This record gives sequence, structure tokens and C-alpha cells, in this order.
Amino acid sequence: MANYLITGTSRGLGLELVSQLLSRPASSVNLIFATTRSDPTPALQKLIDTSSGRLVNIQFDPVEITSVQAALPSIEKHLNCAGLDVLINNVGVMPYSPGGTSGATDLTSTFNANVLTAHNVTSTLLPLLERGKTKKIVNIGTTLGSMGMAERYAMFPVPGYKISKAALNMLTLQYALELGPKGYLVFGIAPGWVKTDLGSDQADLTVDVAVKAVLAKIDTVDQDGNGKLHVVLVKGWEKAPGLNQYDGSVAPW
Amino acid sequence: MANYLITGTSRGLGLELVSQLLSRPASSVNLIFATTRSDPTPALQKLIDTSSGRLVNIQFDPVEITSVQAALPSIEKHLNCAGLDVLINNVGVMPYSPGGTSGATDLTSTFNANVLTAHNVTSTLLPLLERGKTKKIVNIGTTLGSMGMAERYAMFPVPGYKISKAALNMLTLQYALELGPKGYLVFGIAPGWVKTDLGSDQADLTVDVAVKAVLAKIDTVDQDGNGKLHVVLVKGWEKAPGLNQYDGSVAPW
Repeated sequence: MANYLITGTSRGLGLELVSQLLSRPASSVNLIFATTRSDPTPALQKLIDTSSGRLVNIQFDPVEITSVQAALPSIEKHLNCAGLDVLINNVGVMPYSPGGTSGATDLTSTFNANVLTAHNVTSTLLPLLERGKTKKIVNIGTTLGSMGMAERYAMFPVPGYKISKAALNMLTLQYALELGPKGYLVFGIAPGWVKTDLGSDQADLTVDVAVKAVLAKIDTVDQDGNGKLHVVLVKGWEKAPGLNQYDGSVAPW
Repeated sequence: MANYLITGTSRGLGLELVSQLLSRPASSVNLIFATTRSDPTPALQKLIDTSSGRLVNIQFDPVEITSVQAALPSIEKHLNCAGLDVLINNVGVMPYSPGGTSGATDLTSTFNANVLTAHNVTSTLLPLLERGKTKKIVNIGTTLGSMGMAERYAMFPVPGYKISKAALNMLTLQYALELGPKGYLVFGIAPGWVKTDLGSDQADLTVDVAVKAVLAKIDTVDQDGNGKLHVVLVKGWEKAPGLNQYDGSVAPW
């Protein structure tokens, strides 16, 4: 009976994470907190309405730590002295920079959306995670944030995204080094190129397949995987000849 | 006859970079632009006064791109149709976070000071570098920003610094991938732990020794070193038994 909190659940990966977790038996997944910046989208509201109270919408702006802090009492009340077991920092943006790196005007805003959010939510919810059983903190990353793979992805004009996701890897690692000895698991997952609003229709994976693979990773990462960026494992994509392989490996920094 | 621009020259590493470059013959180093946020410190002013016009103070706030842009005409005028050959993005901060990663409140401001500044200055000065002969862009980095070495440095409570410097590595790499084919060299240098205000008296290297090693690196990095973070080479420190070795190697990401 684990309790989850997922940020950025209005659509895409976050919404599907909520949906698939909700379809697990209540004996395995108890409460799911789905955070949004404003009122739930119709798709999220539909899930809430049919969740028998297992799915709770929490509203905050994760860029503003005071906004996250203001939501803490409500989450605590719902948990009723139980802990938070799994936090999934999923919220993020990927703005294009057609002018290349020198033309990028969004470095700080993208950093705030992709790194500061994870930090604000994680640091605020630590007291709840401390009471959790599995103490898992998952940051949704990407191989586009991998410097070891940067040449491969050079043609993608999203410098702010790449820079922020490299920074997110270091944030993950800093938390992992500090919290790992206290029984936490803090790690990144690269869900692959997914057919969402962010990933576009050209992407490799359906959101259903990607989220199944993300949840399988979250279920199985152990102490050895603490602090690392894990690529999802998707059948048939382990040795794909194209740009991306989804082989369950640990991505290079 | 190369022209240099160095940011953050009020004190420490930046001031010593200016001083050592100035001591090179005018046949090798022509103009040196020393940027500061406000009026030159007495130490910098003294160098200016004895430089026979080779050392030019340029004032801007590198966090604000409009401030950098406003300084461009003045730099151009001094260059008198010549190009800028070497840009050294040296400005930076290292705030302590005694509360560890979860207690850090400076992620965005540190990112702006250590990453956005390099981006603002580089992108604004590109037209001048385009006219330069060597087209070198040097970002002052640190092995504390290396994820591959993060465990070694876990005890240093500077999460915002580490995160920003990892992000700086990705910024360096993005510029290197885009500009490398156009004849540029864009790379990071980790000057080591230096006895400056930022590094404290406990540090390994005197500023004189560190800057000599930084300039030697800038002189010698070739195409093979494009996009990488280079550790300085300091005699006697190549295989030091302690925390830091200064062996001229390329740092892991």
C-alpha cells in the first residue's frame, strides 16, 4: 500500500502515470496525489471522479516554493499520518530555440521549470517521504541531457532543455548522495521520446508503452541504481537501429 | 597579436589572468578587455594605469544581456575592425548551503551567475569572435561540476554551485558542437582549488600558479579538446595523494 505524488498531471506522461497507477489494485497503490498548477483538465477530472477517493488533486505552482509549501498541510491531512512512498517529479518544458544555442533566450526559465521545480517539491515533501516505506524520489530526465550523448542529439535545437536536464542530473545526484545512506532511492528516468504534446506525433513510443516502462523501472531500481539516470526498457527497442535505444541501461552523464 | 576579453576581473583569478596576460609582450597579446560590474578595484586600476592603453576596462552586468549588449559598441570601437581572439568567461559565485541540498535557496541565482553570464557574454560577442583568428571561448569550470567525480566531493556543501557548473559544461558542449565546425574552440578549464576569496586560504594552489596553468591550457588546447572540460596541469600535483590532482587531463562529465 504505497502512496504516490506526481507533478505535472494535466496531460501527457503525468496524466498517464496517474491513470496506470490508479489501475493497480488498492492493495498495492493507496493514495495518488496528482498535482497541477490550476484546475484539473477534463481527462484528469474524469480519473478523479471514478477513483473512489484514491486520486487527490493538489494545486500548486512548483516554480514557487511558497506555493508548494502552502499545499503541504492538505497533503498531510489526506495521508493521515501515513508517509509518502514515491515522489515523481515529472513537470517540465522543452522550448525550441530556432536560433541555436547563441539565440537561446530561455535558459533561466527552462532551468526553473525543469530543475527548480523538482528541488522545490522534493525539499518541501521530504518530511512526508521520511515517513514513507520506500522513500523513492524519481526525476523525469532525458538522454538529451546526457553530455556523453550530446553529439548524437546535436541536431535538436533545444539547448535550454539540454542544459536544464544536465543540471537536473546533478540535482538528482546531490540528493542521492545525501539521502541514499538514509534509506532513500533518488534517481532519474529517461522515458524515451514519447508521443505527447511535448514529444510530438513523430516520437518513438506511445504514452501507454512509455509509462508502463517508467513504472517498471520505478518498481525495480535498487540501491545500486541510486543517483543514476535510467533509460527505460521497451521490448523491440533494445537494439533499435535509429537514434534511440530503450534498453534499460544507465545513461552516461 | 591576439585580443582577449576576460569577465570578472575585479579580483582573484580574473585579475591575475589580466595581470599575467599583460606581462606577455605586445607582439603576443595586444588588447585586453577586463570586464567588471562597476568601477575597477584599486588593483585593476593600477594595472590599467601602467598598461600603456593595452588594458581596457569594460563595465557591464553579465547577468543582464541588455547590459552586455550596451557595451558592445565600445569594445568594437577599441578593436578598430580587428576581431576578438580569446574570450574567458570567468565570472562566477560559489554560495554555501549549510542545510545541504534540500536547504539550498540559491539554485536560480547561482545558475544565472555561473551559466547565464557565460551565455550572455558569448552570444553577444560572437560577431567579434567571428572576426578573430583563434576564436577561443573558454568557460571557467570546476571538477565539482563533474557528475563522475560527485562522490569524491560530496562533503562540500555547495549544491547550487555543483548544479550550475554541470549545466555550464552542457552549455560549453552545445556551443562547441555548433561552432567547432566553423573553426572555433569552445572548452572549459578547471583551474583547481585556488587561494582566492572564493577558494579560501585552505586551497591547494596560489593564484599565480593556477593562472599560469590556465593560460598554458588556453594556449595549447586544440580541436581534439573542443567541448571538453580540461583540468590544469601543475608540476608536483599530477599524482597528488589528496583530493585533487592537477594532471592536465580531461575531466569526466
